[in-house]
Amino acid sequence: MTKQADTGVSGYAGGKTAICRVDQDGKELAYRGYPIEDLAEHATFEELAYLLIYGTLPNHAEREAYRKRLGALRALPVRLKSLLEELPAEANPVDILRTGCSILGTLEPEDREHDRNSVADRLLACMASMLLYWHHYTKNGRRIQTETTDTTIAGHFLELLDQHPAPAMQRRAVEVALILHAEHGFNTSTLAARVTASTGSDFHSAITSAISALHGPAQGGAQEEAMRLIAGFASLAEAEHGIMQMLARKQRIAGFGHEIDPRAEILRKWSQKLAESSGDQRVCPVSGHIEQIMRRETQLHPNFDFHSASVYHFCGIPTSLFASLSVIAQLSGWSAHILEQRTEDRPIHLAARYIGPETRPYVPIDRRR
Amino acid sequence: MTKQADTGVSGYAGGKTAICRVDQDGKELAYRGYPIEDLAEHATFEELAYLLIYGTLPNHAEREAYRKRLGALRALPVRLKSLLEELPAEANPVDILRTGCSILGTLEPEDREHDRNSVADRLLACMASMLLYWHHYTKNGRRIQTETTDTTIAGHFLELLDQHPAPAMQRRAVEVALILHAEHGFNTSTLAARVTASTGSDFHSAITSAISALHGPAQGGAQEEAMRLIAGFASLAEAEHGIMQMLARKQRIAGFGHEIDPRAEILRKWSQKLAESSGDQRVCPVSGHIEQIMRRETQLHPNFDFHSASVYHFCGIPTSLFASLSVIAQLSGWSAHILEQRTEDRPIHLAARYIGPETRPYVPIDRRR
Repeated sequence: MTKQADTGVSGYAGGKTAICRVDQDGKELAYRGYPIEDLAEHATFEELAYLLIYGTLPNHAEREAYRKRLGALRALPVRLKSLLEELPAEANPVDILRTGCSILGTLEPEDREHDRNSVADRLLACMASMLLYWHHYTKNGRRIQTETTDTTIAGHFLELLDQHPAPAMQRRAVEVALILHAEHGFNTSTLAARVTASTGSDFHSAITSAISALHGPAQGGAQEEAMRLIAGFASLAEAEHGIMQMLARKQRIAGFGHEIDPRAEILRKWSQKLAESSGDQRVCPVSGHIEQIMRRETQLHPNFDFHSASVYHFCGIPTSLFASLSVIAQLSGWSAHILEQRTEDRPIHLAARYIGPETRPYVPIDRRR
Repeated sequence: MTKQADTGVSGYAGGKTAICRVDQDGKELAYRGYPIEDLAEHATFEELAYLLIYGTLPNHAEREAYRKRLGALRALPVRLKSLLEELPAEANPVDILRTGCSILGTLEPEDREHDRNSVADRLLACMASMLLYWHHYTKNGRRIQTETTDTTIAGHFLELLDQHPAPAMQRRAVEVALILHAEHGFNTSTLAARVTASTGSDFHSAITSAISALHGPAQGGAQEEAMRLIAGFASLAEAEHGIMQMLARKQRIAGFGHEIDPRAEILRKWSQKLAESSGDQRVCPVSGHIEQIMRRETQLHPNFDFHSASVYHFCGIPTSLFASLSVIAQLSGWSAHILEQRTEDRPIHLAARYIGPETRPYVPIDRRR
């Protein structure tokens, strides 16, 4: 145990990683050295997942082999399907993925037959299948096929959701959001994955731990909150009034933060493109106006969550499933972090300063008040 | 973000807690100020759980009300039982508890009807029910009743396991082990619970995360490993030969560590008492001899895991279920930590030093090797 610094619960001194560089001011974000602007422009999500997990961008042959591998792993075990059917329709979708991943860990445990890379592939390939199988069954009583001919994870998700092939623009927009959300250093869900992996636990346990951290408002819920904010205003005037009132009451505005988020810029353009093509007259203008008010009145900048919310909205994704897309995106980053953590030989330890009562004599029950 | 100290992945500077004091040298361990020696001598596990979660030792009325509350929460929802029946017999029992807790989070989510304290009570009360319902169904095809008249969690566990009331000595021995294992500061599973709770995630997610960390050898698996070591020797001579050989090969001896563990002393006595009453001629002498060799040849001391293993063994608990008892014991400590973490207002953050490639230009696929 090293000498402890009294930094409170936030701001622990840290570890090291070769996966993602997040600049102090948040302006620069690069995965394994490649700026995310380039990746969002040129790469597929599968290339990006390969880059994070295997450390290099795949060549033609590697990319095709990886796609084929992922494509072949989308079907769910019969037992998992019947278990998903039993889970309540009104459950939080993130809890369904947490449970589905945990169940899969009992049906297909990490072992010689299923090594760490094949577990990572499997989870990345079938997470959308789990979610949307449960979604359609519990909402409409339909047992969907979980295999599609779409070769991308983004397209697979949209096709399972809508039950028909996704338009190219939507497919790419979701893919870009997945790329931008794949990895962000030691964020809290990644830390949960690494802490769990550091005890020598299996891959499914570490991913289950990470998904558990996405249930909360700080991570998974932020996009949904941003969407509800935007969707709550019928006009620019309403947005003006509503946001000014929230600011006057010092309420937190979902989707805004102190740092400039380079991912927000990229998604704003996608949101505008999708709005144009869909003939939207409300969501895009309202969200633009919220940005304008925030620029005028505060020092805060829109972040990933603010613009991914409207991108997902324009792609026809129900708000309640936004956080599940974070799970799918981050699976790639979490997997890379679990593999990296496994190269360290000790459990992650955090010193705790004791601030409770001094040692005191036991009080027999008859003398307790 | 505070300035980061380059301490590697272990030894982060830390947080603060009022729950448990663990002395640097490990010699002193006190829960909310009460030395564990006193608690192991005088308290019940339920009093101890109450102390950890609510902060004070319960008086007569509080203790009885708490026992009644816990006693009434042992039955499982029908849906959970049918889901447990579908999980494989050969699964790791810790994974069953991880999955069961995650499922329960979808069936009985934390909300106004089920507040944080009632979720903590529910999990503490029904974890043994989940485990042993699955155990008997998948091993013997029997759908057991998960309610017993035993008023203690330890006795409930043993009665569900054996399907008849447990002898008083065994019941108390398991209870003492649960007390001693309930809490140990920021150990890795507790850290996983706190990290997850710090994002604002629900109670079930935080506990699911903590259980995930018990799958591994560093936490949950250590007692099982110790038992296999002890049980592997048929005589003192075999133990002498085997341990000396392991030491010569610099192999790790399960259940031994650098620090004196005050819990080990207490459990050694229980193990001897149980051995005597059962007429054991092998396990207790062999484990005593292993201790002697270790004292003679190394600076290492037996820890909790070493002696809890033989205590559980003498109580007729299958080795594969040892880690599940850690889950039940630590539920009390994790619950206290989740509540404590919720009084902090920021997610637990860990700075990461980037050691990957410098920012580099994107390589189009045709130019990749």
